[in-house]
Amino acid sequence: MSRLLLVGAAVLAVTAAACSGNQQVTAPAADDLMKAAQAQFKPLPASYKDIPGNTASEDLIALGAMLYHDPRLSASHALSCAACHNIGLGGGDDASTSVGHKWQLGGRNAPTVLNATFNFAQFWDGRAKDLTEQAGGPIVNPVEMASPPEHIVEQLKSIPGYADAFAKAFPGQKDPISAQNVSIAIAAFETTLITPNAPFDQYLNGKADALNPVQKEGLKLFMDKGCAACHNGINIGGGMYAKFGAVAAPDAKYRPVADKGRMAVTKDPADEYVYKVPTLRNVALTAPYFHTGSAWDLKEAIKVMGKAQLGQDINDDETGKIAAFLETLTGDQPKVLVPILPPSGPDTTRPQRD
Amino acid sequence: MSRLLLVGAAVLAVTAAACSGNQQVTAPAADDLMKAAQAQFKPLPASYKDIPGNTASEDLIALGAMLYHDPRLSASHALSCAACHNIGLGGGDDASTSVGHKWQLGGRNAPTVLNATFNFAQFWDGRAKDLTEQAGGPIVNPVEMASPPEHIVEQLKSIPGYADAFAKAFPGQKDPISAQNVSIAIAAFETTLITPNAPFDQYLNGKADALNPVQKEGLKLFMDKGCAACHNGINIGGGMYAKFGAVAAPDAKYRPVADKGRMAVTKDPADEYVYKVPTLRNVALTAPYFHTGSAWDLKEAIKVMGKAQLGQDINDDETGKIAAFLETLTGDQPKVLVPILPPSGPDTTRPQRD
Repeated sequence: MSRLLLVGAAVLAVTAAACSGNQQVTAPAADDLMKAAQAQFKPLPASYKDIPGNTASEDLIALGAMLYHDPRLSASHALSCAACHNIGLGGGDDASTSVGHKWQLGGRNAPTVLNATFNFAQFWDGRAKDLTEQAGGPIVNPVEMASPPEHIVEQLKSIPGYADAFAKAFPGQKDPISAQNVSIAIAAFETTLITPNAPFDQYLNGKADALNPVQKEGLKLFMDKGCAACHNGINIGGGMYAKFGAVAAPDAKYRPVADKGRMAVTKDPADEYVYKVPTLRNVALTAPYFHTGSAWDLKEAIKVMGKAQLGQDINDDETGKIAAFLETLTGDQPKVLVPILPPSGPDTTRPQRD
Repeated sequence: MSRLLLVGAAVLAVTAAACSGNQQVTAPAADDLMKAAQAQFKPLPASYKDIPGNTASEDLIALGAMLYHDPRLSASHALSCAACHNIGLGGGDDASTSVGHKWQLGGRNAPTVLNATFNFAQFWDGRAKDLTEQAGGPIVNPVEMASPPEHIVEQLKSIPGYADAFAKAFPGQKDPISAQNVSIAIAAFETTLITPNAPFDQYLNGKADALNPVQKEGLKLFMDKGCAACHNGINIGGGMYAKFGAVAAPDAKYRPVADKGRMAVTKDPADEYVYKVPTLRNVALTAPYFHTGSAWDLKEAIKVMGKAQLGQDINDDETGKIAAFLETLTGDQPKVLVPILPPSGPDTTRPQRD
């Protein structure tokens, strides 16, 4: 009975919202909206220590933080993971594509490292199954950090201070400085880069007034229009693949013909223009958007997605409300100390810059 | 009487040291050596808050930390102050010269930012009188961050979150986002980047066993041979100019003919190859050495300096001891949180990368 009443209230609220051409803000019934949201999304844990299965030691994380910030993993010694995945810039680099070795520009937008641990696969095309598999990629990619693969271990062994850091991070291992352990350590550090306590997390945890009425309308639109069909779960995305242009091909500015997306990985024509659905957490901090980094404005991105994925023209009012909701996905940003790196040794390969 | 006895003991100790061709390590009389050191050098304060005249507020320093790490002060948005003055790498970039805009290489080695506040002038050629005057230079240098000068203020004003940060840092100012205030804030942050508590500081503060016997011998050699004639004071350097090659021209590898040093600033032929004497604090972390970044090995640098500045061939044994002393100049490295930067706004100029 009370349930029926609640549903009735929700219908009234929805009707009111749909008729609010006069800009009157009408919050949907909080309880039903919250329940619907809780059914589709999950809040982040308060700490990375609460991530199920996470057993990384402090020593392993500390080593990972060092490696993540160490430009000597690049051929030039001028680029580290942090160069393109800047923890201070929402975990990305505020650019369409990134600067790599000798100023080569990357092919796709640098995805945020924040909460990346919750993605079901890594890279835009999902070609790495997890952060450990991902972490080694850019280090050896000739367009990015451009380290010769065989060189990474030799390089780290030549920096005396790393011997102790690896020994502590991988206790009991005879020869812990290995490419695989580099990736494991970086992934362990990246797993700490989560952003809990966003207003939307507070809302999912039951705090009804964590979202204001406009943001709640945005949330409702986000679910009702179908955005949440792909952007759902703990990472509000990051849990599936989808074709960019599921309903209508977006402008080539956003989806150039030549980048076939996941098809390049699977060779399956059904995967043409298929990409991993990106997380929307901290999306207000991570412009520009899309794999091309071609939309600088969040509202522009919402409209492009409405058309391309849902076949809908999302009007300005709705777009503003959805954007207001998306801004509630900005959580507490990580507190990371700039790691002090061990100095190079006499045999450390010198930077290759020209 | 007791003073005479001490001097006598020192003479004995020196004689013993001079005769120690058999590698026997003989510590000079601690008291006299310590007094001689205390007369030529000064320990760092324990905290930047103890630096005389330093009145920077926490808000000003926090703003400076943001600006120091914000790549949007560069035309490409790929380079920040921290790119070449990496706090994790001894305040430099572990390279002969730095990567700038579109992969241009800088003309001189990036000097360490650590303890730079104690230098009597900034840049290798002293062309900036202090950190505030220095801080703006690389931002607009076309070879470095390459921002058009008129653009910096416009850029920061376009990033909404900076309005509040500048207002807090410069209370009472009507229009606080200015190029001058950018420099003031960065300089205030840099002033916090000091490295107290090095073994040598402890020694200067009276802890006789903070240096081991070999390090003490190195200190004595450093003073007796004349290194301390230039590398003295609180920063073990950074307090005067000197010609690189005061006695004998170093190899062109270390001192290329074309870079005339301070002469390019003053137009005075007497300033040919004259540079600011660099600080030796944390020198074990700041290879490669010289304005050219051409010596990767500290011992190599010591020998080059002995020949060029003092006309002496410093032998391997002495060089090792001086290097052992120089390693006692490594202090506690700064603890700096990666600053969280405010997101770009709709009018923020986009990165110029190609």
